[in-house]
Amino acid sequence: MAAQPIELHEDRLFPAEPGVRGIARALYREVAALPIVSPHGHTDPRWFSSNEAFANPTALFLAPDHYLYRMLYSQGVSLDRLGVPSREGAPGVDPREAWRLFASHFYLFRGTPSALWLNHVLVQVFGVDVRLSAETADEIYDAIDAALKTEAFRPRALFDRFNIELLATTEGPTDTLDHHHAIAQSGWGGRVVTAYRPDAVIDADHEDFQRALESFATLTGEDVYSWSGYLAAHRKRRADFMAAGATSSDHGHPTAATANLNSAEAEALFARVVAGAGDADDHELFRAQMLTEMARMSLEDGLVMQIHPGSFRNHNFRLFESHGRDKGADIPMRTDYVSALKPLLDQFGNEPDLSVIVFTLDETSYARELAPLAGCYPVLKLGPAWWFHDSPEGMMRFRKHTTETAGFYNTVGFNDDTRAFLSIPARHDVARRIDCAFLAGLVSEHRLAIDEAHAVAEDLAYNLVRKAYRLENAQPSPVAATA
Amino acid sequence: MAAQPIELHEDRLFPAEPGVRGIARALYREVAALPIVSPHGHTDPRWFSSNEAFANPTALFLAPDHYLYRMLYSQGVSLDRLGVPSREGAPGVDPREAWRLFASHFYLFRGTPSALWLNHVLVQVFGVDVRLSAETADEIYDAIDAALKTEAFRPRALFDRFNIELLATTEGPTDTLDHHHAIAQSGWGGRVVTAYRPDAVIDADHEDFQRALESFATLTGEDVYSWSGYLAAHRKRRADFMAAGATSSDHGHPTAATANLNSAEAEALFARVVAGAGDADDHELFRAQMLTEMARMSLEDGLVMQIHPGSFRNHNFRLFESHGRDKGADIPMRTDYVSALKPLLDQFGNEPDLSVIVFTLDETSYARELAPLAGCYPVLKLGPAWWFHDSPEGMMRFRKHTTETAGFYNTVGFNDDTRAFLSIPARHDVARRIDCAFLAGLVSEHRLAIDEAHAVAEDLAYNLVRKAYRLENAQPSPVAATA
Amino acid sequence: MAAQPIELHEDRLFPAEPGVRGIARALYREVAALPIVSPHGHTDPRWFSSNEAFANPTALFLAPDHYLYRMLYSQGVSLDRLGVPSREGAPGVDPREAWRLFASHFYLFRGTPSALWLNHVLVQVFGVDVRLSAETADEIYDAIDAALKTEAFRPRALFDRFNIELLATTEGPTDTLDHHHAIAQSGWGGRVVTAYRPDAVIDADHEDFQRALESFATLTGEDVYSWSGYLAAHRKRRADFMAAGATSSDHGHPTAATANLNSAEAEALFARVVAGAGDADDHELFRAQMLTEMARMSLEDGLVMQIHPGSFRNHNFRLFESHGRDKGADIPMRTDYVSALKPLLDQFGNEPDLSVIVFTLDETSYARELAPLAGCYPVLKLGPAWWFHDSPEGMMRFRKHTTETAGFYNTVGFNDDTRAFLSIPARHDVARRIDCAFLAGLVSEHRLAIDEAHAVAEDLAYNLVRKAYRLENAQPSPVAATA
Repeated sequence: MAAQPIELHEDRLFPAEPGVRGIARALYREVAALPIVSPHGHTDPRWFSSNEAFANPTALFLAPDHYLYRMLYSQGVSLDRLGVPSREGAPGVDPREAWRLFASHFYLFRGTPSALWLNHVLVQVFGVDVRLSAETADEIYDAIDAALKTEAFRPRALFDRFNIELLATTEGPTDTLDHHHAIAQSGWGGRVVTAYRPDAVIDADHEDFQRALESFATLTGEDVYSWSGYLAAHRKRRADFMAAGATSSDHGHPTAATANLNSAEAEALFARVVAGAGDADDHELFRAQMLTEMARMSLEDGLVMQIHPGSFRNHNFRLFESHGRDKGADIPMRTDYVSALKPLLDQFGNEPDLSVIVFTLDETSYARELAPLAGCYPVLKLGPAWWFHDSPEGMMRFRKHTTETAGFYNTVGFNDDTRAFLSIPARHDVARRIDCAFLAGLVSEHRLAIDEAHAVAEDLAYNLVRKAYRLENAQPSPVAATA
Repeated sequence: MAAQPIELHEDRLFPAEPGVRGIARALYREVAALPIVSPHGHTDPRWFSSNEAFANPTALFLAPDHYLYRMLYSQGVSLDRLGVPSREGAPGVDPREAWRLFASHFYLFRGTPSALWLNHVLVQVFGVDVRLSAETADEIYDAIDAALKTEAFRPRALFDRFNIELLATTEGPTDTLDHHHAIAQSGWGGRVVTAYRPDAVIDADHEDFQRALESFATLTGEDVYSWSGYLAAHRKRRADFMAAGATSSDHGHPTAATANLNSAEAEALFARVVAGAGDADDHELFRAQMLTEMARMSLEDGLVMQIHPGSFRNHNFRLFESHGRDKGADIPMRTDYVSALKPLLDQFGNEPDLSVIVFTLDETSYARELAPLAGCYPVLKLGPAWWFHDSPEGMMRFRKHTTETAGFYNTVGFNDDTRAFLSIPARHDVARRIDCAFLAGLVSEHRLAIDEAHAVAEDLAYNLVRKAYRLENAQPSPVAATA
Repeated sequence: MAAQPIELHEDRLFPAEPGVRGIARALYREVAALPIVSPHGHTDPRWFSSNEAFANPTALFLAPDHYLYRMLYSQGVSLDRLGVPSREGAPGVDPREAWRLFASHFYLFRGTPSALWLNHVLVQVFGVDVRLSAETADEIYDAIDAALKTEAFRPRALFDRFNIELLATTEGPTDTLDHHHAIAQSGWGGRVVTAYRPDAVIDADHEDFQRALESFATLTGEDVYSWSGYLAAHRKRRADFMAAGATSSDHGHPTAATANLNSAEAEALFARVVAGAGDADDHELFRAQMLTEMARMSLEDGLVMQIHPGSFRNHNFRLFESHGRDKGADIPMRTDYVSALKPLLDQFGNEPDLSVIVFTLDETSYARELAPLAGCYPVLKLGPAWWFHDSPEGMMRFRKHTTETAGFYNTVGFNDDTRAFLSIPARHDVARRIDCAFLAGLVSEHRLAIDEAHAVAEDLAYNLVRKAYRLENAQPSPVAATA
């Protein structure tokens, strides 16, 4: 079979009906080139502090991206042969061989956002115009590999080229933030900030909990084994993170449970948990209590609070044993919000100065729970379609299920939430296109006027994220300023 | 910015594809002018007994409509400034100032049914043709205010103008029904009936339960503290309500749980509950048992039974403390029907003379539970998309998720379920348009013939509601007769 | 009213927009005539062993098809009058009278797949071109009845005419498989195989559990009251079934729960259950453990394992009392997979030689649980939209909710899962049309190239089912070979 061209059609993701498509196109035209604001994600700040060239196509695209290798694994392809690191370290696989294996299975991604994103990157970033397949594997590998060796494909150059106004990474409570400090002192104008993700010292079910506590103590100089010292350590680290640009914290608990214990109860619970004497219920209750504590601190210091609940981490036991965390084996669970959030909301739900952004992996909660909650409580906003739902159908369902009750203005724009730096423009482009497609549908059915749709499209692509993550008053980066 | 026109397009809510739109338009044309039958809602019967003019635009539109002020509240707007009554009474706010505040935030409703409804009312009822905004606030306020002072905008005149064949209100078990009696004796031909909603004397978790029981005793002359007297009191009140035109009862419990205790168990449970000695489980079991008791009474007296479960009432604790019930802080919960309804269905599910209409706020139950149940049990019918889902997307999801299993004929037409009298024609119009849009989709995909679609459209707009609520044999009102 | 024609439009179920419809039509054209592979269903093998003529239209269409009579029953039509057998046997009703009753209520099926299927059968199989109604009832009855008396409408002739490459029936663990043996020895080339459904000797909640165990012992010669003998009996029967062509087992438990007890625990549990000393929790745990045991046996013998969980069987208590099982009163329940499948997956989830196909009646699990699980575990594949969701909207939702995370290649093609033999071509045709409609949507939005869509369409219609059910290496039947 001859190599097939990649069709990165200018009207992709727009509705097929010509009238609606025309409206979508007109809306998109006004927002396509707006700067990218990425307030939540998992790129590696080291890339931007060191600005070293990426090693090779496999190391850049495949080995770190569980969206890709999980699908191949599900069809019987070994992770070792794909170059995915295990607990033993990176397997000794030729990156080109791994790439060929990926290429020969690329048909598995038909109909998935991964295919959309990769095709976007190949065409827009690398100028590759043939579809990845067994027969084009080498040609594409060579093209990418050659590009990566050039200055124009170093991390900072790509950051600038991508028109990124701000990129937030996510760091743990024991991170020294050295890379962020190095970026700030480098003289480079790119705005790369951090976000405070304290799960490691909050989740006593995590295998590294005790080690993390030790580092937490060392780093803060606090007695983190006393309740007051532990809270003081969080306050210190939040301040450290804010100094490194953070405007938000992030919390990835198994459930959305919150609690509002009195001081004595909280202290007693903490004592059990930190002594390793807590059971599973204690651990859950402690996570729940800490969300409320974090909300209290947010009221003091102004960090926006993100809650990302509902993932059953490391579901594949044997894969966890062999390869560790974050290997594509996290599975969404049914997630309750109505009862779970109530203790926190009873205490802080009506505070004008608090902002809590809630995400879900359980789409059934969009219309039933989250939109009604966000359409009532001043502190609540809805995070965008997340993870497995960060896709054309998923994003469209998000809008269809939330807009009628929560409106657009209780949502916060797009998060790419990715480790795959090169896919960031592709992901934001998909989000902008889907929002324009959704708005075009409203306009064509006379549910929204065209001038309103233009205003909303810009809000969804740019203004809401800046407002929701409190980036409006921050100094725009030089990149953004010239956009 | 210049004032923008309101576009109340004649094809609004119809699919964009011209062929499908043409079918939808043809279907709609035949049902658009059918009389409105509103068998379930929360308008105030006093309006029709006194027929006094509405006070002002804010008092008419904003202060009673939690769909509107909850959205503004979620964005930090104070309820006091909007004129919403608190437990202290109506705040001393200038209604024009409140209206301006509403108008300046009207953009929050983009993409919501509230915007559709309000625009419909402004254009169709008041002849206003500019979009509500900060700059048009006064102009629109004045236009509405002037109209309200005229005879043509008194409640009865609007009722007639709206071509309402029947309007049901909802009253509690201790209501004297004086307004309904006054309407009946007034000589006015409008048919305003009541519905029996006994929650206040069934739900022991309600803060007014004991007070309601006292009134229940006074009003019926029964010993409502004995199980037999309590049931007799219900029978009396059901008869009173039927005399005031009721053809249905309504039950708004937290869950859909039913129970079928034997007499001795039920009596013992009742004794605990009425003595204030019951715990939360007792209260839930008592509510459950009472649904089965109500079904038994329906078999005797013929009232159609409505079950509206699944709302977590007054979720916002501080708002409840300050402003009381029904302030837009009720949040849907996940709701089970399969196990919950079984005790009632085991007893009465196959009775030819019983009719139970079930609603849900949990859309996941449409295809999974409710359509299969209604497609099997002779007593069950599906109520229309309810509350937060009473919207274009919500109503379309209802049809898409229920029709293939339950068909159209296990559904009961539309309920507006509103406190906002002026929005009734707008709401019914949206429902008719969405049903025609759905049917047009079926016709265009050759899943339904056009003659069948016309028949179904009329059934959904008019015939099914009359049959389901047993209004067919009732004397049509003069208004309906001339429609 | 004059008789209406049946419109079996060549473009039925394709999207209305002309461009998309054109793509769907082109895709469908290539797959419409592919042989039917039906790897899971409930037709009666006796039909093909005896090859006797079907008795009459009512006995063929109505009496065995709970999709049809449940809807009529829900509207108050008596099952006796429809000819549906009760525990007393077949009611003494004139089949023509029953047919007339069905015909006069056929409007109830507007918008349902039952109407699509029946219209397809009337036109394509019987050449009837008028819609079923009270006035056409006799004319259609006579036409079908006359056809059924001809050789061309005997089961084997229809099987051949339908271009069925393989048809799997489902038999219990105590079935002698005589009909399958007779078919094999008949010299007829039609490939009718069985599937192993051992629920009757696994589910101790079944009223016939003990009787089934007795037959199980007799048939296998094993001591089925000892744990090792019981397992050995399963192994024997699996081998028997494989000799009768089975390539799969099937498990229809109330939940998807699996367990992985150690030997001693399993044996103790088995002893309690088989002695009738188990409680409901024991029965559930035993079903759970047996799924893992069946997976273990599948690793040995290669049978593909199907799990069909989540149905509340015989929900209508009085109907069960009067008419027994499988009378359209099974209701889907909320079903968890994430926790439920974990014990089995912990043990066997990464086995390259095991294949487990999971179905659901709870559509909320598609995107949240099943697609992520199938997109991670090598052993898991997703069964197609099942039962109540085996419909145009249901199948479209399946694709929209699963494809973005699991892709197409973790799905297994279509199952008709039917007792209604004549509807098999209609059901496969609907599935092929909906898949082409879905693919056409992707192509028109430039999410998939047209050459990819053609390849996927063929995979979904033909190749995936052969691979997933391990039919590829099996000898094609003569019918298939000439297709």
